[in-house]
Amino acid sequence: MPETIGFIGLGLMGKPMALNLLKAGHSLVVNSRSQGPVEELVSAGAARADTPEQMARQVTRLITMVPDSPDVELVLDGPHGAFRALQPGTIVIDMSSIAPAAARRLAARARSHGGVMLDAPVSGGDIGAKNGTLSIMVGGDAQAFATVRPILDVLGNPERVVHVGAEGAGQLCKLCNQMVIGGTLVAVAEALALARKAGVDAGKVREALLGGFAQSRVLEVHGARALAGTYVPGFKTALYAKDLNNVMSTLAEHSLPAPVTAVVQQLLHATMAAGRGDDDNSVMAQTVFDLAGLH
Amino acid sequence: MPETIGFIGLGLMGKPMALNLLKAGHSLVVNSRSQGPVEELVSAGAARADTPEQMARQVTRLITMVPDSPDVELVLDGPHGAFRALQPGTIVIDMSSIAPAAARRLAARARSHGGVMLDAPVSGGDIGAKNGTLSIMVGGDAQAFATVRPILDVLGNPERVVHVGAEGAGQLCKLCNQMVIGGTLVAVAEALALARKAGVDAGKVREALLGGFAQSRVLEVHGARALAGTYVPGFKTALYAKDLNNVMSTLAEHSLPAPVTAVVQQLLHATMAAGRGDDDNSVMAQTVFDLAGLH
Repeated sequence: MPETIGFIGLGLMGKPMALNLLKAGHSLVVNSRSQGPVEELVSAGAARADTPEQMARQVTRLITMVPDSPDVELVLDGPHGAFRALQPGTIVIDMSSIAPAAARRLAARARSHGGVMLDAPVSGGDIGAKNGTLSIMVGGDAQAFATVRPILDVLGNPERVVHVGAEGAGQLCKLCNQMVIGGTLVAVAEALALARKAGVDAGKVREALLGGFAQSRVLEVHGARALAGTYVPGFKTALYAKDLNNVMSTLAEHSLPAPVTAVVQQLLHATMAAGRGDDDNSVMAQTVFDLAGLH
Repeated sequence: MPETIGFIGLGLMGKPMALNLLKAGHSLVVNSRSQGPVEELVSAGAARADTPEQMARQVTRLITMVPDSPDVELVLDGPHGAFRALQPGTIVIDMSSIAPAAARRLAARARSHGGVMLDAPVSGGDIGAKNGTLSIMVGGDAQAFATVRPILDVLGNPERVVHVGAEGAGQLCKLCNQMVIGGTLVAVAEALALARKAGVDAGKVREALLGGFAQSRVLEVHGARALAGTYVPGFKTALYAKDLNNVMSTLAEHSLPAPVTAVVQQLLHATMAAGRGDDDNSVMAQTVFDLAGLH
């Protein structure tokens, strides 16, 4: 019989993920800052825990899906955090996107409390969360990964659930993902800006480029959004900015120069400064268009 | 019956393209700087013209496939250039990758000589040239495009033969293509460098990223070359540098800021300065690895 799972963080991503676990037959205990989604999950059959600590007493599989490193630290290692009551052998799966250094630190803390912790950030957005087709990048103990793999396969596309390496490797992989998306997005935006500025049909340029070596999912999906000027999330720029801050701190940790990523960071600051944090992260293309005097 | 075609420039790309036209049943008249490939084409059934001017007397369809703007200007508009003897109604198809401004200038010159000129640069490398599966981005008169479409369909994948717009639009599209490839390549290299530097298996990171939004042909093909450290052309860095010079002059022409492309240009200079002009252009990844102290 599927295990009872604790689930902390019922936001834009967490709520549909938790619902998918219920649908797959798991018992759920849920906790979240906002009570609306908690009520919704309780109506759908989940139990409620008032604090992560109370939740930890009732489960040996615990998923966290919250915004950033300090949030994960609070729900796991804070005053009413899950670590205070961790059952022996509990596997904590943090699916938030946080700094790899924080993930390694928390994994060590989980171990000291008799548990094991995997970092398992996702890619694929709210649509992937709803459809259970997320990509999941996992770092941590291979045995624990094998144990919870059926749970991850409910949440993600099983072909895209990848054990990348040791503790923190999942988060590091996610940062690589965000670096590639950012650089590709700005390059695409600069190219589309050139087409527009030169009076060439940018839609036809996008179409022509999709047939060759310049093809990417970013050109396909974000390119279409940029040309339509429609930046409905999707994935909010403010959350992408959070990820890119984690990229920059991790690059600094390793003394790694990444000049294109550094430029992406500057354009992202400009995008946030223009008040576009709630738009889909493809809105960075609009910042490039603005720079070019295109509207 | 298929028309006789003049073909100027039997290099790495031009030779297999000319052979494909022969195979498709066209009569060919060829001209090239190196006599080796000319002999080869003559053995395969082509006729030889000693100069572009002599060639122009014999054909009304003329393809040029040479390195850069000055080369196209020489064979078309030079002392023994094709324009000197252009037959009325000749359609010149320049498949070289040159500056859009040069393409527009030459198209105007062709018109003044009673012909019409299309710019039709390609993407897909020597393999695409051999297999007749190139992407072809065409600018110029729509009627002339329709007329020579069967010829282009021999050289390229018919689904990827796109009429982008007016004179110069094909070349502009090609520059957009090179901008996107450059930015994507450096972003991919920076991400793979981070993985390596952090002790995470970069091959697994590439694999995980290919399943999500970071997917691109560059991550797939150039990413694999970068991880293997195998930079066999493919497409020589020196030729990519030529294209990026045309990108920079075209950006300047339109007063268009493109900060990621500007960084790509700097890294490309570093790559050329390291003596890597004959390597595949994916070798820019090695420059990023070198910056990171990775070998």
